[in-house]
Amino acid sequence: MQAVFHWPLRVYYEDTDTGGVVFYANYLKFFERARTEWLRAAGVEQQSLAVSDKVMFVVKSTAIDYHLPGLLDDQISVSVVVKKLGRASVEFDQQAWRIGGVEPQLLCSGSIRVGCVDTQSLRPVGIPAHVLARLGQSHVLAQ
Amino acid sequence: MQAVFHWPLRVYYEDTDTGGVVFYANYLKFFERARTEWLRAAGVEQQSLAVSDKVMFVVKSTAIDYHLPGLLDDQISVSVVVKKLGRASVEFDQQAWRIGGVEPQLLCSGSIRVGCVDTQSLRPVGIPAHVLARLGQSHVLAQ
Amino acid sequence: MQAVFHWPLRVYYEDTDTGGVVFYANYLKFFERARTEWLRAAGVEQQSLAVSDKVMFVVKSTAIDYHLPGLLDDQISVSVVVKKLGRASVEFDQQAWRIGGVEPQLLCSGSIRVGCVDTQSLRPVGIPAHVLARLGQSHVLAQ
Amino acid sequence: MQAVFHWPLRVYYEDTDTGGVVFYANYLKFFERARTEWLRAAGVEQQSLAVSDKVMFVVKSTAIDYHLPGLLDDQISVSVVVKKLGRASVEFDQQAWRIGGVEPQLLCSGSIRVGCVDTQSLRPVGIPAHVLARLGQSHVLAQ
Repeated sequence: MQAVFHWPLRVYYEDTDTGGVVFYANYLKFFERARTEWLRAAGVEQQSLAVSDKVMFVVKSTAIDYHLPGLLDDQISVSVVVKKLGRASVEFDQQAWRIGGVEPQLLCSGSIRVGCVDTQSLRPVGIPAHVLARLGQSHVLAQ
Repeated sequence: MQAVFHWPLRVYYEDTDTGGVVFYANYLKFFERARTEWLRAAGVEQQSLAVSDKVMFVVKSTAIDYHLPGLLDDQISVSVVVKKLGRASVEFDQQAWRIGGVEPQLLCSGSIRVGCVDTQSLRPVGIPAHVLARLGQSHVLAQ
Repeated sequence: MQAVFHWPLRVYYEDTDTGGVVFYANYLKFFERARTEWLRAAGVEQQSLAVSDKVMFVVKSTAIDYHLPGLLDDQISVSVVVKKLGRASVEFDQQAWRIGGVEPQLLCSGSIRVGCVDTQSLRPVGIPAHVLARLGQSHVLAQ
Repeated sequence: MQAVFHWPLRVYYEDTDTGGVVFYANYLKFFERARTEWLRAAGVEQQSLAVSDKVMFVVKSTAIDYHLPGLLDDQISVSVVVKKLGRASVEFDQQAWRIGGVEPQLLCSGSIRVGCVDTQSLRPVGIPAHVLARLGQSHVLAQ
């Protein structure tokens, strides 16, 4: 079984819309913050990666379901699970939960596939070996 | 055959990220602008709808594929096609094309399902008859 | 007297917050869209400028007053007036008006100072002569 | 002398633009996150305030200077200082510093004035006494 990485965040005015709820597109930002911190926890900084390895990760596809509306001031916990680690791409399952109440409530869930690309040509390239090693280890360690 | 509604827009700095491309979450904004203008073209203003009928549309699920990166200053044309018109929800197929070059290029495509909810309780309610009539007519007229 | 450039836009869900109004930071986006289109109308594309001249414009300071709240579906007209055209910077006076009603209403006004910088070093550099010429001409023509 | 409240945050892709730096409008979001957490630390939740007291805070004016560009992955610390506490408005001085390097660097500074308004009419109203008491106490305690 794989351990689950969690990243906490808060809902601010910037995240909401006039419907009184979190603007749906912003869950993609919440999900990315969690993936970024998961990467950082594995020792990978994306700014450094762009400079040293001339690669970056770009989102290739997303499939998102919205279950319950998030509200201003909500405490959110975003999970990161690696579904599939390929040579040039990674598939994630992610969820955003409202926490801090009587029991957690699932607000949003989805799958995100990211690809590794050259920072100049924007064409697909293999994930650098040192990154793959760290992600693989993190995967193994997490099992 | 259903006619396709198109909405043009431009890529500004606000839409891009440090990867040098349009930030992927922003295509959801582009898609929504086009759906909003499609609704407006059918005579439906969402602010009025919230006031007069106490309902609003919320996004329930999205499935998006990113094909090519959008760039600063790109001219984009976003299409809107109604895939399925239900009593309380609508499914759309949408695409974002880069235009203005030698030939159009598909940047992003996807399906978006929106539901009609009460503005106070945020619970699902039927799409108001006068809206449904307009959307249905627009559908018929567009064939 | 200087002619005033106007750029029209609409308020979408993405622009609003749970207070039921346009999120104040988004007027900076509205103002920039208008400046970008003012530049484009003068024949200057910023993506081309970054590639051909290795320069870009960055915002150095802003002073903004919020007068009335903008609402979903509002039609907005944003004005652009060059207050001062320097060798490496431009100062603008801008306003956002709600139009389409009985009479226009001023929602937001402010001053924005942008500087010209090298795209690599991000250090100040003079505005390219061919751009300055176009802006100067546009200024003269507009008087 | 008044104690200074600090709020830490990270720069993600969502915060940057194709110029390779933090998009300037996003510092307003960073500043607001810090003000929100400063309020929360004083025991005031804005969502509760809107429900129980029918008031909310809206930004009335901003004056911002941009000193150095923020970059992806930067660690930022945002300060909050109350410059003036009125009956219906608060003026703040705020700064965003890049931390985590050899020495802190000032990226952005500015003044923000917020007003208290009725959530329905959006008209100015006095800050509720229990909030004013908490802010005043926090002010006194912080000296």
